[in-house]
Amino acid sequence: MSSPTSPAAEGTLSYEQAGVNYDLIDPLKVAAQRAAAATGAHLGAHGFSEIAASRGESAYVVDVGPFYLASIVECLGSKALVADEMARLTGRSYYEGIAQDTIAMAINDLITVGATPLVVQAYWAAGGSDWFGDARRAQALVAGWKKACDTCGVAWGGGETPALAGIVEPGRIDLAASCTGLINPKERLSVGDRLGAGDAIVLLASSGIHANGLSLARKLAERLPQGYLTEVTPGLSYGEALLAPTVLYSPVTEALYRAGITPRYCANITGHGWRKLLRHPAELTYRITRIPEVTPVLKFMQQHAKQDDREAYSTLNMGAGFALFVHADEAERTVEIARAQGVSALVAGQVEAGPKQLIIEPINVTFGNEDLQLR
Amino acid sequence: MSSPTSPAAEGTLSYEQAGVNYDLIDPLKVAAQRAAAATGAHLGAHGFSEIAASRGESAYVVDVGPFYLASIVECLGSKALVADEMARLTGRSYYEGIAQDTIAMAINDLITVGATPLVVQAYWAAGGSDWFGDARRAQALVAGWKKACDTCGVAWGGGETPALAGIVEPGRIDLAASCTGLINPKERLSVGDRLGAGDAIVLLASSGIHANGLSLARKLAERLPQGYLTEVTPGLSYGEALLAPTVLYSPVTEALYRAGITPRYCANITGHGWRKLLRHPAELTYRITRIPEVTPVLKFMQQHAKQDDREAYSTLNMGAGFALFVHADEAERTVEIARAQGVSALVAGQVEAGPKQLIIEPINVTFGNEDLQLR
Repeated sequence: MSSPTSPAAEGTLSYEQAGVNYDLIDPLKVAAQRAAAATGAHLGAHGFSEIAASRGESAYVVDVGPFYLASIVECLGSKALVADEMARLTGRSYYEGIAQDTIAMAINDLITVGATPLVVQAYWAAGGSDWFGDARRAQALVAGWKKACDTCGVAWGGGETPALAGIVEPGRIDLAASCTGLINPKERLSVGDRLGAGDAIVLLASSGIHANGLSLARKLAERLPQGYLTEVTPGLSYGEALLAPTVLYSPVTEALYRAGITPRYCANITGHGWRKLLRHPAELTYRITRIPEVTPVLKFMQQHAKQDDREAYSTLNMGAGFALFVHADEAERTVEIARAQGVSALVAGQVEAGPKQLIIEPINVTFGNEDLQLR
Repeated sequence: MSSPTSPAAEGTLSYEQAGVNYDLIDPLKVAAQRAAAATGAHLGAHGFSEIAASRGESAYVVDVGPFYLASIVECLGSKALVADEMARLTGRSYYEGIAQDTIAMAINDLITVGATPLVVQAYWAAGGSDWFGDARRAQALVAGWKKACDTCGVAWGGGETPALAGIVEPGRIDLAASCTGLINPKERLSVGDRLGAGDAIVLLASSGIHANGLSLARKLAERLPQGYLTEVTPGLSYGEALLAPTVLYSPVTEALYRAGITPRYCANITGHGWRKLLRHPAELTYRITRIPEVTPVLKFMQQHAKQDDREAYSTLNMGAGFALFVHADEAERTVEIARAQGVSALVAGQVEAGPKQLIIEPINVTFGNEDLQLR
């Protein structure tokens, strides 16, 4: 992982300032990735094999014969801290949305490889047994978890609800979800080998900040005189706006499959904002000619963090939560199918032969390969 | 979940005293289980179905046609706190063993349903980026994780390494593992429908406390004048003894499969100690006539916590980490196969017609159905 390369202007709030130091995490990630890669050969003893190309992707894929198996574990991150603070300020519970956010982190990554999510497992590690004693909050978490499973048509298999005093902070909860799915038929596999010049880039709308960039959002709240209760738009507080649940995109990818459209590649736009559009390893240029409307809460964050467009688009989703790279002939139909599932979408640009870069014409920003080292 | 029903004698240290209050967790678990059960029907839209009997078991199983898919997420619990304290006292790193413990929590549960574990995902949520800055500790975690994957023949698919300041305590790490496997051929499915009177109970040896009962173990350390450095046996400190890594049992279950032995049922002996032998829902009596040697650290804990046998066997594994219920004719061969994999084992007793109870004859202790409400 890398961090924004633009020099921080006076008063600008960057990720380093928000307390996440990727330089310390990266050596471990590299060592872990190397060790993990060496274990793929074990599958041979079972008559199976890994899809090596999935190693750099958002979910791990194994060829088990009649279909591919995809699996993942994903963490919510620090969004629950915003929910806790807003609950203190308003007396409401926001854990129904938090549950959806957690599941979205796993599902939206799993579907990038072409998988149909089948089973979700819940990981709810609380700072003590008393977390579960707040019945309203606990029931909201359960209700939201079930609702998100219903939306995605996945089975909630079970999970863990440990009380981890001494590891998780008192009164807090560490939320994560694991997800297992199948790529069936195997032609649905999407690890990027089909992506090429001429393909269209379709962007699916986000609902807000989703669950990435929350460290920055929380730091910003400290700077605002009215904190989370500052209005983003009339009647909508910053805290409420941040807590809009992450869009679940699997209904869109499943509808595309039913319509006979197989994306050439997918990118879940999470940490690193639009730089995630550079995720694919090939030397290709991504030219964006139309951008979606920026969600008010993200516009608000950009203004108050005094970020220029380059920094904002390199950190936040700026209105686009998921990118589908499809055959140009299928682009408009992809947009229609997404809309039919209640998700706004637009044909934002195209893939071109050329050096690896993302050119966002409407805002005159270009990101190069050096801006994204994810693998 | 229930807690020991015997009245706590003077000076006895029970789970409630060690800070885990299951009464607060249980209503949430019940609500979550009910909501989760209602989502199983979603699989029908994909042409699949859940194995309903797996709902009460240690891993969730889905029928995907040519084979069954099993998945799980499991938490390490608080054992890392012992590793942290021992690192402070001795200057050594214990995270290689901790990695094995974490994987064992997932794998040893997954195999109870007859699954071959295929893919493990790592969930390492640290209290801050600086956790990963201790290179020796981080490398030990990576090395131990890989080694455990090698032992079990699973592919390490990837994972999450979030830095969760404000949720996870500074300097701490919340460790979990998710695991996906296949039950292939389908005849390997073991959810208890084949268990019956006359079957033998084979117990596989534990290496020590494994990763359950650590809240109690840590509380006990506070009572000891020399704490974790108290000797359990000459030259072996209490802390070191507690940190013996959990035995990985999948090499045994895989060897049994290769030898043509399909267990009628399995129970991973974790929380609730030997009461886990009552896990199967049927009305059956489990008569234990031989018990394994109690690991020194567990004997030490029982003595210092002033627990009688009833309380000790209802909380700790007391030398038995995993139970295999097999056809009586296959019991001795099961023991031999386990030993060939380096795991001590013994034919401990048999299943009988009769009320649901566990009779441990050598220590004159009986647990009834009321002692274990896991479902």
